Amino acid sequence: MKNKGKIYVIGIGPGDREQMSLMSLKAIKESEVIVGYKTYINIIEDLIKEKEIINSGMKKEVERCEITIDEAEKGKIVSIVSSGDPGVYGMAGAVLELVNKRNSDVEVEIVPGITAANAAAASLGAPLMHDYAVISLSDLLTDWEVIKKRIDCAAAGDFIITLYNPKSKGRITQIEDAREIIMKYRKPSTTVGIVRNAKREGEQVKITNLERMLEHNIDMFTIVIIGNSNTYESNNMMITPRGYFK
Amino acid sequence: MKNKGKIYVIGIGPGDREQMSLMSLKAIKESEVIVGYKTYINIIEDLIKEKEIINSGMKKEVERCEITIDEAEKGKIVSIVSSGDPGVYGMAGAVLELVNKRNSDVEVEIVPGITAANAAAASLGAPLMHDYAVISLSDLLTDWEVIKKRIDCAAAGDFIITLYNPKSKGRITQIEDAREIIMKYRKPSTTVGIVRNAKREGEQVKITNLERMLEHNIDMFTIVIIGNSNTYESNNMMITPRGYFK
Ligand SMILES: C[S@@+](CC[C@H](N)C(=O)[O-])C[C@H]1O[C@@H](n2cnc3c(N)ncnc32)[C@H](O)[C@@H]1O
Ligand SMILES: C[S@@+](CC[C@H](N)C(=O)[O-])C[C@H]1O[C@@H](n2cnc3c(N)ncnc32)[C@H](O)[C@@H]1O
Repeated sequence: MKNKGKIYVIGIGPGDREQMSLMSLKAIKESEVIVGYKTYINIIEDLIKEKEIINSGMKKEVERCEITIDEAEKGKIVSIVSSGDPGVYGMAGAVLELVNKRNSDVEVEIVPGITAANAAAASLGAPLMHDYAVISLSDLLTDWEVIKKRIDCAAAGDFIITLYNPKSKGRITQIEDAREIIMKYRKPSTTVGIVRNAKREGEQVKITNLERMLEHNIDMFTIVIIGNSNTYESNNMMITPRGYFK
Repeated sequence: MKNKGKIYVIGIGPGDREQMSLMSLKAIKESEVIVGYKTYINIIEDLIKEKEIINSGMKKEVERCEITIDEAEKGKIVSIVSSGDPGVYGMAGAVLELVNKRNSDVEVEIVPGITAANAAAASLGAPLMHDYAVISLSDLLTDWEVIKKRIDCAAAGDFIITLYNPKSKGRITQIEDAREIIMKYRKPSTTVGIVRNAKREGEQVKITNLERMLEHNIDMFTIVIIGNSNTYESNNMMITPRGYFK
């Protein structure tokens, strides 16, 4: 009888080995094939010496999932690696959708990881101590009108707002528009945290405000956290009070 | 010269040892004093045999922080342990606020962890693949009116909605009200995931819908994820499409 094959969709956290979970390390050790970007794979290089590596840097998301399922259907244990958590703008959804589409009987296990929002928050202090919204500014797969409406609703609800994919080389106006929308509801002095390469090599942490946030370097390795109406900066830390001290 | 003392505010993830990060294990090993609830400390029992344990089960959050800072000010390395991520309804904020209030010069490092939303999502499939809001239904420290407004805004923005602290023995109507509000914007058939003890012993996973969600067991060990208008159930998995397959 043929082995059934198994896919681990693994979140390796923000990018430092130390921030990986024991489970994600274990799943990688157990796997015969590893699918992922070169940068993510680098931090686990010593664990994967004897394994088949499919470096999918140049491939589209859906292609990567196809390859992963193809390999698993041969009866292999395959890990497909996402940064952060695979369920947050990562590979979990596409793998599961495609397994369903193909009527495949391979087993899929999602292995969670620390997502960029939580990694960046830890480096900033405690900005996410109250209700928060997570929004991607990438309009590759989502209409910009939908995203704008979400920013508006999150701002109206006084959510702390965490922006993934805030800017890339070809996509620069979205963060400006997002700021404009939030300005309708919040003061220019609202605290904003900008973290580049959170909890991995080359980390840069900036605490600024809505008024001045665009003066800082924001790119595709950056996450932006916009405080709610109570968030403040103190001693270089960004804190949203939960309400213990009134 | 007196040692300066250091505080690690540690997230241990959802509650299974396997979901802890290497960094959180390292910080615990390095610490002389551990402050935390008995249940959380149980999963690291073997690591803390020789250490001073302050089991703060019966103490209020602020008291726990005071003790932590007191110990660190004696020059010790102290870990204060939260479930999930310490920056999401955990101890990070209170510790930093109190360190500031006391003008203390102890160093504080926040060690992130996998928060309940991401752990539960992994067990459900891929429900958080699009923009989402994180809301606590506990009105102990926040006016219920503020929380209701947030639920309304999140529902209006078609966010996936993740509810922490959905219900406790003394607090049972909030989840009913939350559902009512969301029903104004979403169909009764909207997919809802309910996960009790996500990624730890005794895990229970239910996929249901807005109409029937209250028929299921919801308590303080539970997290509730309400899908957006595109979320669906397939083969016992809850999936929010990111938009790859149209
Ligand atoms: C396609 S999303 C992947 C998110 C990932 N699955 C997660 O859970 O963190 C890529 C975006 O995540 C954010 N990001 C991921 N890792 C980061 C890190 N270590 N520091 C700052 N931002 C990060 C950036 O905004 C980046 O543009
Ligand atoms: C005070 S909050 C602490 C949250 C924690 N700091 C985190 O990041 O997950 C407690 C609430 O978190 C949720 N929770 C925490 N761990 C959970 C788990 N393993 N499974 C389901 N819900 C969990 C429940 O809603 C619970 O009422």
